[in-house]
Order: sequence, then C-alpha cells, then structure tokens
Amino acid sequence: MLNPKTVVVIGEKGPNYQFLQAQNKYSGKLYSVQIDEKEIPGIESLGIKNYRSLEEVPGHIDLLIVAVPRQIAPLIASQAIQRKVNGIHFFTAGFEETGEEIGNKLQDDLMKILKDNDTPVIGPNCMGIYNKKLSLRFHQAQNFSSEHNTLKGLNLSLLSQSGTHGVNVTVGAQRKGINVARSISFGNALLVNECDLLEYLINDKSTDMIAFYLEGVKDGRRFLKLINSSKKPIIIWKGGRSKAGARAVASHTASMASNAVIWDQLIKDAGGISVNSLDELINVAILFNNQKYRVSNNLALITMTGGQSVAITDAFEDHGFIIPQLSNRSYKQLEKFYNVIGGSYRNPFDAGATINKEMDNFKRILDIIGKDNNIKGGLVIDINTRIYTDNVNEFKSFLKLLNSFRNKHKMPVILVIHTLTSTLTMTDRDDNSRENVSAETSQFATDQAFPVFNSFNDAARAMSLVASHKLDANI
Amino acid sequence: MLNPKTVVVIGEKGPNYQFLQAQNKYSGKLYSVQIDEKEIPGIESLGIKNYRSLEEVPGHIDLLIVAVPRQIAPLIASQAIQRKVNGIHFFTAGFEETGEEIGNKLQDDLMKILKDNDTPVIGPNCMGIYNKKLSLRFHQAQNFSSEHNTLKGLNLSLLSQSGTHGVNVTVGAQRKGINVARSISFGNALLVNECDLLEYLINDKSTDMIAFYLEGVKDGRRFLKLINSSKKPIIIWKGGRSKAGARAVASHTASMASNAVIWDQLIKDAGGISVNSLDELINVAILFNNQKYRVSNNLALITMTGGQSVAITDAFEDHGFIIPQLSNRSYKQLEKFYNVIGGSYRNPFDAGATINKEMDNFKRILDIIGKDNNIKGGLVIDINTRIYTDNVNEFKSFLKLLNSFRNKHKMPVILVIHTLTSTLTMTDRDDNSRENVSAETSQFATDQAFPVFNSFNDAARAMSLVASHKLDANI
Repeated sequence: MLNPKTVVVIGEKGPNYQFLQAQNKYSGKLYSVQIDEKEIPGIESLGIKNYRSLEEVPGHIDLLIVAVPRQIAPLIASQAIQRKVNGIHFFTAGFEETGEEIGNKLQDDLMKILKDNDTPVIGPNCMGIYNKKLSLRFHQAQNFSSEHNTLKGLNLSLLSQSGTHGVNVTVGAQRKGINVARSISFGNALLVNECDLLEYLINDKSTDMIAFYLEGVKDGRRFLKLINSSKKPIIIWKGGRSKAGARAVASHTASMASNAVIWDQLIKDAGGISVNSLDELINVAILFNNQKYRVSNNLALITMTGGQSVAITDAFEDHGFIIPQLSNRSYKQLEKFYNVIGGSYRNPFDAGATINKEMDNFKRILDIIGKDNNIKGGLVIDINTRIYTDNVNEFKSFLKLLNSFRNKHKMPVILVIHTLTSTLTMTDRDDNSRENVSAETSQFATDQAFPVFNSFNDAARAMSLVASHKLDANI
Repeated sequence: MLNPKTVVVIGEKGPNYQFLQAQNKYSGKLYSVQIDEKEIPGIESLGIKNYRSLEEVPGHIDLLIVAVPRQIAPLIASQAIQRKVNGIHFFTAGFEETGEEIGNKLQDDLMKILKDNDTPVIGPNCMGIYNKKLSLRFHQAQNFSSEHNTLKGLNLSLLSQSGTHGVNVTVGAQRKGINVARSISFGNALLVNECDLLEYLINDKSTDMIAFYLEGVKDGRRFLKLINSSKKPIIIWKGGRSKAGARAVASHTASMASNAVIWDQLIKDAGGISVNSLDELINVAILFNNQKYRVSNNLALITMTGGQSVAITDAFEDHGFIIPQLSNRSYKQLEKFYNVIGGSYRNPFDAGATINKEMDNFKRILDIIGKDNNIKGGLVIDINTRIYTDNVNEFKSFLKLLNSFRNKHKMPVILVIHTLTSTLTMTDRDDNSRENVSAETSQFATDQAFPVFNSFNDAARAMSLVASHKLDANI
C-alpha cells in the first residue's frame, strides 16, 4: 500500500480533483472511479481513465484513495474488501472527530466492516501518502524536491496526523536541503496507527530519520518501546499540549491529549526528541541531516559586530552551551593581526573589522580556532550577507573556507542568516529586498550542506536538542 | 545636543565618510574639520565645507562628532570645551573596553578633561545620534522611514549601547510601521549615561514609547525609579545575561552584567518590559504601536486548517492565555452555516473550509465572535496568503472586515503570516517566492496598522509581555 503500482481514486469531485491532479508525475497506473456524470468529463480531461464501479477497474489495486461522502464510506469499504484491494486510504472525514451522533455511528459501521480483515487502512480524515520515489503525492506543493537535485544526506520520512503539517514539513524540509522520502498523513488512525507506521519506517530502507506530527497515541507502551529500539533519530512534534489545545485536537482527529511535561520526559528517556512547533521540527531535522560531526559543548561563536557578539552568546548560554576562552597560545597568535579597536578576539569573536572582506584574515582566525583544544563542539557564525550582495565570488570563497574548516577539524559549522541583522549595510533597495537576499544566501549555503537558521535563538534551541540526544554520536 | 542646528564632524576618514555621508538630508548646518591633506578633497567632493581647525568653524556648534584616533581624543576634548560646543559625541573607540593599559589611560585622561565641565558627552565607542525630524543620522539605512509616509501611531525612541542594534531596531521597527523619532547609541556611557538619556526621553514631546538595548546600568536605583515614574512604556533588551555574555559585554562597552532573573523581576516590578532579543523588542513595540484596544485573556483564534488550529492553541496556552469556549447561543448561530466536516467552530476556529473566499461567511463568523461575551481579549488570525496571490482585491476586503471588527467590538486584531505555512496552496513559483509573498502581505497589513508576526510563538510571547504590563491600559 505504501509503495503502490496501481492507485485508484474513488469519488473525487471537481473543480480541483486534488488527488488526481497531484499525481501528474506518478510512476504507476492511476485510475478514477466516479459515477457522477457531471464529474466524469473533468476527470477524463486530465487524461485519467474513469470507471463507473470498482469492479470494472482492471488488474490488481494496491491503493484505493476514498474521497466519497461519509455516508457512503462503509459501502465503499465493503466493495474494496470484496475487490481485494491491497490497502485503503480514507480521505473522507466527518466521523468521530465531529462529535456528532451520525459521525460516531458511521465510524462504528466502518469499523465493523474493516476490523476482521487484514486490509490495511489509513485514516479516515487524512491526506494519505506521499512517496517521493514513485511521485505519489497528496499535494502539488510536494514536488519541490524534484526540482532540486542537490538534496543529499539523510532521507527523512514523516508521519503526521495533520495533512497541513504533512505538507508543510515536507516542503519546509526540502527547502532546507533534506530529502523527504515519505510523508504519511494518517488522521484518526482508526486501524493503522502511529505504532504500525513507525515500525514500518524503522525497518524501511529508504528512511534514515523519522519525524512525527502527533495528536495522540493509541498504544503508549508499544510506542515508547519502538522509539527505544530505533537506531534512526525520531523527532516528535506533539500537538494539543493543554486544555484548549486538547479541544482542538479532539475536533481535529479525536485523539486523547496528554500532560506535556510527562510526555517530553517519556520521549526523551526513550531516546526520541520532543519538539513544540513546525519550525523546531524542521530545524532539528536540518541538524541531523548535515551533522557529519557531533554538535556538543564548547562552541566558538563568530559575528561581525560587538552588539551581535553579545546577542549570540546570550542565546547560546540561555540554552546551556559553554562558550570557553581560548588558550593563551591562540590569543598570542590572534593579537598579531586582529584589529583590536574594531572588535574583540576572545570568544565570542567580534570579527567584522578584522575580516571585512579579507579572506586571509578569516582563514587565520579559523585555523587558530580549529587548532585550539578548548573548542570542540562546533562553530556558529552569523553570516554577513553584505559579502554576497557586493560580490558573489567573495561569498563563495567564504563558504569554501568554512567547508575546509569543518572537514579539517572535524567540527560542525552552523550558519545564522537573520533577515534584518545580516544585511546591516544594505539599505532596502528597489532592486532587491532583504527577504530575497536572505533567501538567496540561505539557499546557497543549504546547497553546500550547511545548516542555516534564521536567528541565534532558533539555532541554539535546535542544537541543544540534538546535543542532548542519545543517538547523536551514531549517525 | 540632541536637536542640533549645527553639526561638526572632526577627523573622519575616507573612503566611506560614514557620518558625513549619512547626513545627506540633514536639515541643519554641517561642517567638517580635517587636517589630513589626503582626506580633504574627498570631503569637499561631498559638498561639505572643511576647516583645518575647530576654531575656524563659524558660529555656534551644537554637536561635535569626534572620529579622530584615540590618542588625540583628549586633545580634541580640550579644544571642544574651549570652543564652547554644546555637546560632544565620541565615535572614537579603544578605551576601557579594550582591557589594554593604553585604553584605560586614555579614558582617564579624557575623563579628567571632561568631568568638571557641563558639556554633555555621549560615548566614547558609539554611533551617536539619529534624529528623524532633523534627518540627522548615523547610518544610511536609517532613511527607511522617510520613504514610508504611512507611519502612524506612537513615536518610538531608542537608547542603545550598541550601534548595530541601534540601526537594526530603527530599521526593523520602521519596517513594521513604527515611527522611530530618535535613536541614540551611547556606548561606554562615560559621562551621559542611560539614566540621563532616559530622563530626557520621559519628558521628550516627540517620544511616546522608549526602548533600550542595554549592557549595564551605572546607577541602578535611579534607573528603576525613572522607569517607575514613566507614563510611557519602556521596553528593555538587556545584553550579557550570563558568563560569556558578560565577557562579550566587557569587551564591547565595558559594562558590568547582572543576574538575568533578578534583572527581569526588578524591571517588571518597576513597570518596564524585559525582552531577550532584537525580535522580541520589535514585536513588543509593534503591539504597543497598534494597540488601540487592550490585549488581555480570553482570545479567539482563527486558522484555515485543523493542524494549524492545534498549533496556534498550543502556542497561546504555552504563554498562559485562555482560549474559552463560546456561548451556546453563538454555537447555534455558527452551526447554521459552518462547514462542519471541513473544520471546527469551537475556538480555535478551523475556518478554511467555511471561509474559503466567501467573505460573507467570514463576516458572519466575525460578528458572532464579536458579540460573544466570552471573548474579550482579542482576535488572532493566521492569514492565508493564497487569498492575496489569487486576488489582491479579495485580500483587501479581508483586511477591511478585520478592521471593521476591531473598531466595532473594541478588540485588538493580531495577524500571523508564517512564510512556510501561510502559503500552503502556493507551490514555489518561478515568478514569486514565498518569502516575497509574505513580505508583501505583511507590508500591506502593516500599512493598515495591524500587528503582524511571523509565527504563533512570536505573537503569543509578545502578547503575553504586553498583557502583563501595568501601563497597558493607559495607552
């Protein structure tokens, strides 16, 4: 079902035909089943063969995507079982999550038909399956990765109880250079639940790290056991942390919410990483994806002004990092060329006046940091995008030096590009906005496999989560 | 000195001539003093009259900007006192903050000359004075506001021990629709300190709210007393919260850092707002600037999908807000037209399927929320920028409805535009990036005096700081 050769979409209506449209590059066979005469011309105009019933569809069906009205869902379930489809995805919503009597009754009916069969069922009330290799999609936006062949590193697979977050994590991660192999939106988790899917991904060869957007867990004991057994990092964003959040969850996927603090501790003890938002999930995934070397304590921090050197240090110390002094030997080397009046060379490094665009000075600073035994955990640098706007080649040299540094000294290098602060010397110009410059420079660095964050605080938070992760050293 | 009619810059060197260049629209008289023959042609080519000595400058001097090397600074101080200048700004750095013997000695020398005079002195080691009304600037980027005549609301004045943060707050606030009246970078605060400047701003007619980037306080008792006496909101970003942060501060402006927790409590008790970063400072200022109505508890939250409705609720509950249920009467009205299967109408509102682009439905929802007594503290809405990309006029109608809502029901309306999530249905197109769409829609809403934030978490954090502020109701 998760790697289907034949997909049938039943009951999808126009004008958008979301599922049929999204498969415009799907590598398998795709059919539609629709009896509404008004819908058939629209479906056929997409070049998709339509049948009047499930029985008429030729050959074996690996995945049936059900988009019929909720009242008909039980009937379609019966037909699908009779037809021996390999797996069913119920996009159809309007069951337990509505809190209505009719919704509960329909869910019971559906359950009665499905429970005694081996047919795996995803949903109801969800977007279903994205499989990059097959170009099987549930949203057009998920094609971002196919346009970027520079994706490398780990393959992320996502399990989400929300279709929106399923799409947003997929797109957001791809934009940050992560190859998203699979994304499965599983909604109310009536039959196939988070544990079944997690077990599958833990053993899936196309998955190196696993992320969750989760609103509730059906079998907590099994869930924690699976996390504990996994050699792949598992990042979990739990929605519905408190009272009204739980109410939102109830009406969204009818899951039971749990106490946030207990949850975080349980996940951590089992070896997972608990995050609180879309941004945090993606930021942690970026670090794992680019973490050839281990993030740990004793960091070197470089900024281009004194004010920023204070701000970056506060952010990292707030998150428990140690920013050590260098050895006296290093300071003696640094004082030979460092522009003292314009900046400090302790750690953090207020380096703007010394580097300016002098790549030789930058190289000397990096060499001294790399050789200093007090610095072990990585280098975080606040990127001055002025270098990029003034001369793209200078910017390339800059990244090249950072790349040599991490390879030579086996240390991670993390970049921060803040839209407002990184472009200090660029007034808002008509021909290019700060937002564009940030996006362009970020993409450039992302393509070179550098983790890029939008603020010191975001970087520090993600790095502290990864540094405290038990699997960190194994990746 | 802070409202000068005549400014003299002494000792500035090319090729950039930062201070002389930045005054290209300064409304007063501007002269240069420079004896270096190599520099004079460059200065004169800017159309600025240069003199060989301070004595030769005609008329009264209100502000002397000193950019000479540090060794000459004491000599220039003597000449300036003799010349009876109204005030001095020492841009020159290299004193106590270097930790060097020579730096300390020069600072002592400077102090000896200056301390027995009434001449106010800003610095050393700072960028000095931005005064919007006079177009007196210390950085070219500070001209943003003059290009945007839509700025309205309160006038923010900023006091900063960092020139970088001084520029970044100025530009960042202006981009978010705040009229920045003054920005004073005061560096080492040798003579004029944070208390003197704060006292001035508390009584300054062109200042409605005050922001600080502060690394240390010279007179804590007076400082807290002044905050307590202020009827204007005072937002304070304190740099150097812990060990290495304090080290960064020491080499930056040689201030003494203090314990972060004690600091936060002292500031809060005195009636100030303590923030931890550039973004937080600007976000809180945005709220004060647009807060015609009071942010308080019992919020209504609207998003366009179920996943987002869980995420927004978590963010606001994490920050202590209550998201109440509506009255039964409201629910009865809502159920008449709400698209139940596609979303929930409890609170948070998962409204996408009901609103889509139907402004009538949106108006009905707003009317019901506005009249419900359970909702008192404001409305936060996750803006779907698809409306904007599809049809700018629809987007305008959307903002118009939100504007009527806040005027009619006397409640603040806060917008969230997240680059990744707000553009769910827009795949990354060649002709327009998500970043651009976010920037454009944000500017649009900012121009209509809506507070706009980039994430639920940013909005919730800033709103909680403002909601707990004692002066909140008086503005």
